[in-house]
Amino acid sequence: MEYMDNLTLYELAGADPENRFSPHCWKVRFALAHKGIGVRRVAWRFTEKEAIAFSGQTRVPVLVHDQTVISDSWNIAVYLEETFRDRRSLFGAPEAVPLTKFINSWADTALMMALLRVILLDVYACVDDRDREYFRSSREARLGMTLEEAAADQEKHIAEFRRALQPLRPVLERQEFLAGDQPAYADYCVLGMFMWARCTSEVALLEPSDPVFRWRERLYQAFDSLS
Amino acid sequence: MEYMDNLTLYELAGADPENRFSPHCWKVRFALAHKGIGVRRVAWRFTEKEAIAFSGQTRVPVLVHDQTVISDSWNIAVYLEETFRDRRSLFGAPEAVPLTKFINSWADTALMMALLRVILLDVYACVDDRDREYFRSSREARLGMTLEEAAADQEKHIAEFRRALQPLRPVLERQEFLAGDQPAYADYCVLGMFMWARCTSEVALLEPSDPVFRWRERLYQAFDSLS
Repeated sequence: MEYMDNLTLYELAGADPENRFSPHCWKVRFALAHKGIGVRRVAWRFTEKEAIAFSGQTRVPVLVHDQTVISDSWNIAVYLEETFRDRRSLFGAPEAVPLTKFINSWADTALMMALLRVILLDVYACVDDRDREYFRSSREARLGMTLEEAAADQEKHIAEFRRALQPLRPVLERQEFLAGDQPAYADYCVLGMFMWARCTSEVALLEPSDPVFRWRERLYQAFDSLS
Repeated sequence: MEYMDNLTLYELAGADPENRFSPHCWKVRFALAHKGIGVRRVAWRFTEKEAIAFSGQTRVPVLVHDQTVISDSWNIAVYLEETFRDRRSLFGAPEAVPLTKFINSWADTALMMALLRVILLDVYACVDDRDREYFRSSREARLGMTLEEAAADQEKHIAEFRRALQPLRPVLERQEFLAGDQPAYADYCVLGMFMWARCTSEVALLEPSDPVFRWRERLYQAFDSLS
């Protein structure tokens, strides 16, 4: 891992400033680790809009590389791939980029929404005091109900989350990683969601017999130094 | 299109023997057209198990190439790619194969199940008389309810199908095809589902303003000669 002091990553942090639980920030951390790059990491809270106003964004991740500002985890992954071409590729081939974008999009919609219902109250318990009202009101507006209503019947939401993972299983039954015999950014798009849960919740999301469980274990081991 | 008389494709047919509505058979037809290959096409019904017993399978598509028998649309696509290497690639690069397999798996689970609830009674109306009882009993066992119960409230199922398509939109808003600026097998995995509906139902699945609608139009035009 080569530390580069001209790279700064703004990451969502919780009440514990070391708890960086955002799934999108985790995607960037895995992308950087894949390329063997260490960066300066800055804790940021949902309500600290001024701290990242320079980026034109209201949300993290935001990456600053010298004078260049990149936001959105997908844009950051593409930027890292283009800027650090001589390092291990995040996509493997140009033809894999649009397909990886679909997998990212699937993780951000079908998977994230199903998982949110499982870990919502656990996430809420982790957010910083100054973010609690923002988190409640923004999520309740999006969900159209209270946090407590959305999280009720956790067993049902776990079953729905496991069902949402179904497209992964025929792939992971036959190969080690989503991207093939080595992990790539497609894997990190999904793994970021599991890290969001790992940082916030004790819930058992997967059965050990699930091929997704074994895939997750392989990746947790590969990136052990990040946790 | 080069016709090869040593290739035979067994396709599901309806009461109208020219109505070949299976989404998985459509994937194979698009793969063959992509490679510029014409084949002998044999109509097959759900209950004609003996007709494909030689393949060891009870379902189509089954492709016979000289003495080689290949079943399952994914296996057939991989076989065509390996066997006809000098023709236009179905995947573009080896790194795209596992990611395309995920997209195929997503189409076969999340997408197909959502679409089934929309077009179930229309599909049932298309199946051959000798298949009607088989179709009803096998689908009712899988769904855990009668066909009529599963299909009730079509408006709700259309809304759910449109929601299931959500991961496609951020990709198709920015590029012409799922695989990039040219279609590839990832596109055909999804397009096969729309052909299943097109062959069986009059229902309007998409709004014209939907990027998925415009993507589908581009592909319908590209493969106009197949319909």
